[in-house]
Amino acid sequence: MAHTRKHKIAVVGSGNWGTTICKVVAENVKEHADLFEEEVQMWVFEEDCTLPKDSKHAASHPEMLNKPQKLSKLINELHENVKYLPDIPLPRNIIANPDSADAVKDATILIFNMPHQFFGKICEGLRGKVLPYARGISCIKGVSVSAERGCELFSNTIAEKLGIYCGALSGANIATEIAMGKWSETTVAYDAPPVDNQGPGAKPFEYYLTGSDKHITLQPMPSEYPLITHENLLKLFYRPYLHVRVIGDVAGTSLGGALKNVVALAAGFVDGLGWGDNAKAAVMRVGIQEEVKFGEKFFADTFKVETITEESCGVADMITSCMGGRNFRCAKMATAEKKPIGEIEKRELNGQKLQGTDTAYEVNAFLKSRGMEKDFPLFTAVYNILEGNNKPEDIPQLLAGQL
Amino acid sequence: MAHTRKHKIAVVGSGNWGTTICKVVAENVKEHADLFEEEVQMWVFEEDCTLPKDSKHAASHPEMLNKPQKLSKLINELHENVKYLPDIPLPRNIIANPDSADAVKDATILIFNMPHQFFGKICEGLRGKVLPYARGISCIKGVSVSAERGCELFSNTIAEKLGIYCGALSGANIATEIAMGKWSETTVAYDAPPVDNQGPGAKPFEYYLTGSDKHITLQPMPSEYPLITHENLLKLFYRPYLHVRVIGDVAGTSLGGALKNVVALAAGFVDGLGWGDNAKAAVMRVGIQEEVKFGEKFFADTFKVETITEESCGVADMITSCMGGRNFRCAKMATAEKKPIGEIEKRELNGQKLQGTDTAYEVNAFLKSRGMEKDFPLFTAVYNILEGNNKPEDIPQLLAGQL
Repeated sequence: MAHTRKHKIAVVGSGNWGTTICKVVAENVKEHADLFEEEVQMWVFEEDCTLPKDSKHAASHPEMLNKPQKLSKLINELHENVKYLPDIPLPRNIIANPDSADAVKDATILIFNMPHQFFGKICEGLRGKVLPYARGISCIKGVSVSAERGCELFSNTIAEKLGIYCGALSGANIATEIAMGKWSETTVAYDAPPVDNQGPGAKPFEYYLTGSDKHITLQPMPSEYPLITHENLLKLFYRPYLHVRVIGDVAGTSLGGALKNVVALAAGFVDGLGWGDNAKAAVMRVGIQEEVKFGEKFFADTFKVETITEESCGVADMITSCMGGRNFRCAKMATAEKKPIGEIEKRELNGQKLQGTDTAYEVNAFLKSRGMEKDFPLFTAVYNILEGNNKPEDIPQLLAGQL
Repeated sequence: MAHTRKHKIAVVGSGNWGTTICKVVAENVKEHADLFEEEVQMWVFEEDCTLPKDSKHAASHPEMLNKPQKLSKLINELHENVKYLPDIPLPRNIIANPDSADAVKDATILIFNMPHQFFGKICEGLRGKVLPYARGISCIKGVSVSAERGCELFSNTIAEKLGIYCGALSGANIATEIAMGKWSETTVAYDAPPVDNQGPGAKPFEYYLTGSDKHITLQPMPSEYPLITHENLLKLFYRPYLHVRVIGDVAGTSLGGALKNVVALAAGFVDGLGWGDNAKAAVMRVGIQEEVKFGEKFFADTFKVETITEESCGVADMITSCMGGRNFRCAKMATAEKKPIGEIEKRELNGQKLQGTDTAYEVNAFLKSRGMEKDFPLFTAVYNILEGNNKPEDIPQLLAGQL
């Protein structure tokens, strides 16, 4: 069926990773002009920003050097996010927009890519402002885990708050490497029905949120638009330097990005002891196993083992995080220097927080409330080491169930 | 059923890895004296050897400093393999023996752990010398792949040449780390029937070699001996510092140890280009996929996907090899310095050969003869880069099937 309209893309977020993914899709919409509108809106959290003296734009824009400028104006005039993705030229079809409601207003595909701390407020701000039949993809890493509310996927929270379907994108993705065009892979997960609920006569339909007994009423996409198939999502995200596999398992795709941070702490602990590559690989292998078990226990209906063991969002993201991410590095320093990790965090991260420690505490509270700490000995070991109940040296015995 | 005899262990090989595994089992037989004889025979390729001046035994054994000694004598007197595993004290129940037939003569469990180049000759020498009902475990990394003979497992070759069953041991195992008691994991694969063919009245039985239509006649283990169950194999190999999982898939366990060397070259190529951690993780992920596909295509009857994706012999061994093994390092240098890898190999390895390049050529000849090069784009890319038909920069396009 020929379509008469094209999808319009909006990216909600313009940090390092948000700007990178916006660059990717802005390149792709031009190559697939039959499916997508050329203009890509990027919502920018507005702030004042002075052009750095060593910027290559300094000579041509001397007026920006001395007087603070709006970040959105800098991006639109210089086609560069000088604050969060410096030195990377952006395609001219990206329009930075500080007004979130205006940025998303005609978008049929919304890509969410903002920091956790802005998440709740931004979703509130967008409520009622998005097209009722829009579809979303969440690039926000992590899941929100707590004893009380269980294990909540950001994609589900978006779906509930905005009343739209939301999938996920996650992978072994250091943003700057992708922005520079260095070869990477990622995973896109999308399981909304693309066909059955589109077309003349299609009616609103009930959609159960992944791993949840909550459901929302989804509006069918008008048949004037191209179907949102896995093939078309590939056209939106795949670049020669960003290989993509599109799968259906949203929960598995989201879990990997959260739980690997806990495992990266464990990898840092054993590396800090000087135990070598065997031990580091063992931690990663056990970590993959516990991610699989977590998915099987808590998202039994939709989770697929191979999302963790074979996709970029699983095994590959685990590998990059345990090779050199900040969770790994801080845990390694803490162990090697015999200092509390909180002290290292303060010293090394310039006020930023480690994702892994928060997730380790959240996951532990969740498992404890369900009497399942023993079923996840590595996650539990990381918590107990952070709490001072165990030492990194105890990991092998803890994994063997001997402590 | 109570047993009246115990298993006697012999380790065939005494290099770095052979001595390490011998230390492991020699520690374990003492802890499980109900199952195993205390003495562990270790066959030593005899050579003359002078004690290094900085050895801690120099003061107590001045006579060994100036005059070459037999390596077996040094090991038995000093309880240390001063040549291949220096500074690691060995248990006193290891008996180094330069006579291979004598070393194996009463052994019911044979552990094979010698370098590839000695393999054929040693097997010939042992023919007819081992107990007809002995069982083997091969720790020899790799498989022998060729266009003519297909894909041969060392465990199968041992089985055929000696007429005994042979399983495998493989994992993320840098020998020195294990010898030092640094925590590691490994995989033991064993699928001989432990029960049905033992006991009074048990008869010789036909056993099909893994992934082969050849079969051999196996002698039942006399019922005086403990059953060789997965549980008892765990007692033989598991240490607090060496965690072990015993599985049934011998082919999968063996394949991982061979094919990862090809992938490690690819990881070195992309790292040599400065492409970063995303690309390295992507190469490993694709490598795991191709190992899985290789197992499924060529060992369909017994291969299990999870041997590669979840066990130490698969994903974990892949990780250690791509983080810093010699294949990775030489490929990285070759790319960064724009020199042929053969030149780097000569410069860096002191006359030793890279396993990965040989395996890449063998695997390619095998795939080519079956018209399956395109089904394994990463393995094929490595071959073509080694041959000069492609450049490391081509890897993403080669994987996407665009070159």
